[in-house]
Amino acid sequence: MALTAEAKGVFPIAPTPFLDDGSIDMSSIDRMMDFYVECGSTGVTVLGQLGEAAKLDHSESLDIAARVIARSAGLPVVVGVSAPGFAAMRALTRDVMDKGAAGVMIAPPNTLRTDDQIVTYYRQAIDAIGEDVPFVLQDYPLTFSVQMAPGVIRRIVQELPSCVVLKHEDWPGLEKISTLRSFEAEGSMRHISILCGNNGLFLDYELERGADGANTGYCFPDMLCDVVRLAAQGSREEAHDLFDAHLPLLRYEQQPGAGLAVRKYVLMRRGILASAAQRKPAAAMSEKARKEVDHLLARLALKDHRASNLVN
Amino acid sequence: MALTAEAKGVFPIAPTPFLDDGSIDMSSIDRMMDFYVECGSTGVTVLGQLGEAAKLDHSESLDIAARVIARSAGLPVVVGVSAPGFAAMRALTRDVMDKGAAGVMIAPPNTLRTDDQIVTYYRQAIDAIGEDVPFVLQDYPLTFSVQMAPGVIRRIVQELPSCVVLKHEDWPGLEKISTLRSFEAEGSMRHISILCGNNGLFLDYELERGADGANTGYCFPDMLCDVVRLAAQGSREEAHDLFDAHLPLLRYEQQPGAGLAVRKYVLMRRGILASAAQRKPAAAMSEKARKEVDHLLARLALKDHRASNLVN
Amino acid sequence: MALTAEAKGVFPIAPTPFLDDGSIDMSSIDRMMDFYVECGSTGVTVLGQLGEAAKLDHSESLDIAARVIARSAGLPVVVGVSAPGFAAMRALTRDVMDKGAAGVMIAPPNTLRTDDQIVTYYRQAIDAIGEDVPFVLQDYPLTFSVQMAPGVIRRIVQELPSCVVLKHEDWPGLEKISTLRSFEAEGSMRHISILCGNNGLFLDYELERGADGANTGYCFPDMLCDVVRLAAQGSREEAHDLFDAHLPLLRYEQQPGAGLAVRKYVLMRRGILASAAQRKPAAAMSEKARKEVDHLLARLALKDHRASNLVN
Amino acid sequence: MALTAEAKGVFPIAPTPFLDDGSIDMSSIDRMMDFYVECGSTGVTVLGQLGEAAKLDHSESLDIAARVIARSAGLPVVVGVSAPGFAAMRALTRDVMDKGAAGVMIAPPNTLRTDDQIVTYYRQAIDAIGEDVPFVLQDYPLTFSVQMAPGVIRRIVQELPSCVVLKHEDWPGLEKISTLRSFEAEGSMRHISILCGNNGLFLDYELERGADGANTGYCFPDMLCDVVRLAAQGSREEAHDLFDAHLPLLRYEQQPGAGLAVRKYVLMRRGILASAAQRKPAAAMSEKARKEVDHLLARLALKDHRASNLVN
Repeated sequence: MALTAEAKGVFPIAPTPFLDDGSIDMSSIDRMMDFYVECGSTGVTVLGQLGEAAKLDHSESLDIAARVIARSAGLPVVVGVSAPGFAAMRALTRDVMDKGAAGVMIAPPNTLRTDDQIVTYYRQAIDAIGEDVPFVLQDYPLTFSVQMAPGVIRRIVQELPSCVVLKHEDWPGLEKISTLRSFEAEGSMRHISILCGNNGLFLDYELERGADGANTGYCFPDMLCDVVRLAAQGSREEAHDLFDAHLPLLRYEQQPGAGLAVRKYVLMRRGILASAAQRKPAAAMSEKARKEVDHLLARLALKDHRASNLVN
Repeated sequence: MALTAEAKGVFPIAPTPFLDDGSIDMSSIDRMMDFYVECGSTGVTVLGQLGEAAKLDHSESLDIAARVIARSAGLPVVVGVSAPGFAAMRALTRDVMDKGAAGVMIAPPNTLRTDDQIVTYYRQAIDAIGEDVPFVLQDYPLTFSVQMAPGVIRRIVQELPSCVVLKHEDWPGLEKISTLRSFEAEGSMRHISILCGNNGLFLDYELERGADGANTGYCFPDMLCDVVRLAAQGSREEAHDLFDAHLPLLRYEQQPGAGLAVRKYVLMRRGILASAAQRKPAAAMSEKARKEVDHLLARLALKDHRASNLVN
Repeated sequence: MALTAEAKGVFPIAPTPFLDDGSIDMSSIDRMMDFYVECGSTGVTVLGQLGEAAKLDHSESLDIAARVIARSAGLPVVVGVSAPGFAAMRALTRDVMDKGAAGVMIAPPNTLRTDDQIVTYYRQAIDAIGEDVPFVLQDYPLTFSVQMAPGVIRRIVQELPSCVVLKHEDWPGLEKISTLRSFEAEGSMRHISILCGNNGLFLDYELERGADGANTGYCFPDMLCDVVRLAAQGSREEAHDLFDAHLPLLRYEQQPGAGLAVRKYVLMRRGILASAAQRKPAAAMSEKARKEVDHLLARLALKDHRASNLVN
Repeated sequence: MALTAEAKGVFPIAPTPFLDDGSIDMSSIDRMMDFYVECGSTGVTVLGQLGEAAKLDHSESLDIAARVIARSAGLPVVVGVSAPGFAAMRALTRDVMDKGAAGVMIAPPNTLRTDDQIVTYYRQAIDAIGEDVPFVLQDYPLTFSVQMAPGVIRRIVQELPSCVVLKHEDWPGLEKISTLRSFEAEGSMRHISILCGNNGLFLDYELERGADGANTGYCFPDMLCDVVRLAAQGSREEAHDLFDAHLPLLRYEQQPGAGLAVRKYVLMRRGILASAAQRKPAAAMSEKARKEVDHLLARLALKDHRASNLVN
């Protein structure tokens, strides 16, 4: 099932589950996928920035992608294939597409500066992986230091038909969504799906600006699914109430670098991952941070039943 | 009244009020200062990053600092003196200290990379402005691209006795506060005041990690004062409840670049500023953004009476 | 005499002469200006990146510009007015234009990334200083981290009629000159003067690509004048021979950061500056470096009589 | 034969020869290796920054390394193993060491900023590849944006015994060599080999500052070998004369991005490579640039017989 510009809803960014010894935890992958499917996800993205992709070798990456696809119950699976060279990008793309991936996600290398450099990079990448592979354009300046003006995104979309989704995580980014949607309205850019990352920190208003959903890894993807659903059905205040209840924890998890440990810890507490282990190198979560997360969960439990069994 | 390492509480970052024609609005400065004093601020910082300092010429900067100091009711006033050269930094420092400033704030130029470069820069800056001027070290990597490891801050503190406050806005930054406080506990660094910026996005837990207060410009400094007070008196959950009620708006205002327009708009809505005008160049707040802020204020009014008269 | 798009020849970047105590050395300014005029310069630029502009306060900058203009024998004088804010930029521009400057030079702040950000910055700068002031666009990515694609330069030139000179110091930059000249040939960009900086490291071939001359501070501006003259008259190999004779020293002086000390030292050795002093903060030239420069001068003396009296 | 801290002489950075269709040209590898051995090289480095390593997949990289090692006549072969993740770095390291490599070269990822981040990165890298593998520390801020203060290099050298060579290409970098050698002299750092990169742009004086040789890819490695030999035997002016004769071309080839095309073109003209082809994506050399290189070669031929058969 190919990824298309009509993608909507929530594509969780899946973490890569490891056991405490650093080996890949295939059972947790299955459990996590079942959870994603049950809570209403409309797709899944693996091997992204927070999937610890750089700590995996080629064959491990393939094994993980294959397991996720096998357990996706027909949901489209997007695989992160960002790489320092096009040879590695092409090899991974071809292999995961053969295994049934719906598309790939490509982040820009952090050396790109000018508009032309950015457009050229994506042109060359698509030349390498093939025009038949649908791809997600990742726009995350905070992490990649690459700033894509709306006009640059339009150039990429217009020039490369296989660009079907924008993983929107510019920050601030609300006006960018409005600008891109106005490009579509005026007919200067074809329609693409806009799914929001950045841990969903502005998802509440991003949906109102025209985003189609979320593509991020917050530890309560079920909340994201509910917020998208409530917003879609017009229950505006209800959507905001639910979102706001999670905002203190969501903000905490969104901390660059430190966030993955929080995410894995909560997913472990929720019974989805067997372990919160990350592969080396990884910053351990301090005892103080763990207590802060527990405190945030306890406070969340007062407002959202999903957290009620997580109170210590 | 000199700034010291015992600084505590809330030092609001004051915006620079302009009239719609771009002239400086001295009446709003007075009103703003009265408000800061009344709501329990323990100091004020002017001409910072969000005080549009770069749009003011030298004599305007002096006039603003003088007016703020005259209306500060004895509170210590810190003046931002960051400049591309030490000649301008020294000139502004000397002039504002003559007018009664309590100290100055110095941000690092964004070309600094290595530990030694950072320490050397502050050594040279203090050599230029004089060792007798207490200064605030601003640690804001997100904006300045300068990363100060805890050990670098320690070197600056130990080498330069006039460093009395850290404006802490590293992100993530909770562990940094704990590390700096552990340096003090083990005796490898003298005590300094840590006041948190970054719009207060993590103020709730920063206070629990050992921060002394806030040094930021969120449009409800009265809330910041209450949170600091509640935390200090041990009313933990009450402090978090109040903070969480503001988090949706606070997060919205914290957007880099876009935030100042939000801040000035709300301060105008609150009757403190006569106008939300910024000097050119400035990004105007879109109509969509204005409605989002109004929505956030309406939702805030349900939880905090301070916002109740701001509902349209 | 206003700066125009017909500027040609050599505009030396003047260093700011200081006495050993850090005060401005007006006598050396006079001697330096007389030297520039005598050796065939067609203009002069002051208060640039290597003019230690950031170490001067506003009144000092004005005094220097005025002295240079008074002694320029009618040559156009360009003044660097780059500043962190438009208020300071406008103030200095207006003051030096009143004193008879021919135009100003504006470097981009190193925070600019996208094409639109760069164009917008120059639009706002010209809005601040006035459309009647001819300006030099400085394109120096190595120092400013701002990359201007040829198309961005074209947008600035087409949109802002007061842009008359490009200080070209992109690196590598030969193809950029060819591209800009091809824009002119095809009629998509009006003609501007291209003067080369980067210490002249590629001046030999830049002239052949279509540059109009040099705008840099190499310690033998008289050589630059001769090379430009020889190239213009078609004495290609003679131009290269002279250039190549200087290349070992020129390359040495071009080292970022370290180069200004070399430049001032040689200008002192040549009897033009009374002292090689820089204002603080400045990296001193090591004894080893001084001996290397003396060695380079001794070797140069074997090929160019200009250096013959500099052999220790 | 393991790489040691006693490495001296010239380790050319080998380009990766491709045929016009993009396939790897094994015959040219053999010819190139024979040339390196004959002209007096003391080692070879493959798969570096200019070896187009990112365009090769894992098995291709292995094949190239194996062929180079097989044809190295006993010279130590260093393999670049820089990678975005430690899994890929470890895999390539283990594989090439098994095939007989003498050591590996590791460049820092361009996200590193603080001293601690840099030291931690190398500690983790060595933890991944194993302490038994000698490694070259690559210090190239111009390309990688990572600035290693001398004290950081000392920390790495002292903490990681397998660090045996510094590929020195900081710019400016002469004082850095002197500082590192002074650390050795005072006993605060053990001795390591310093081999200079940056196309050898300062090799003349770097050798006099204490460098042990060159580790760069200039298209006349035979000249580099002669310069190192002349300097070692005390023929100072002769060494400089030879170096200066090449400086115009060497400077031209050193242009970032554009240089590899020049290098491959000249190596093709010299009969060493069958083709100047680069794998996509690559900037083609313009017709104007090709003529400039031919001109530089013609002028070089007047001073160095090595170029005499390259005159068109």
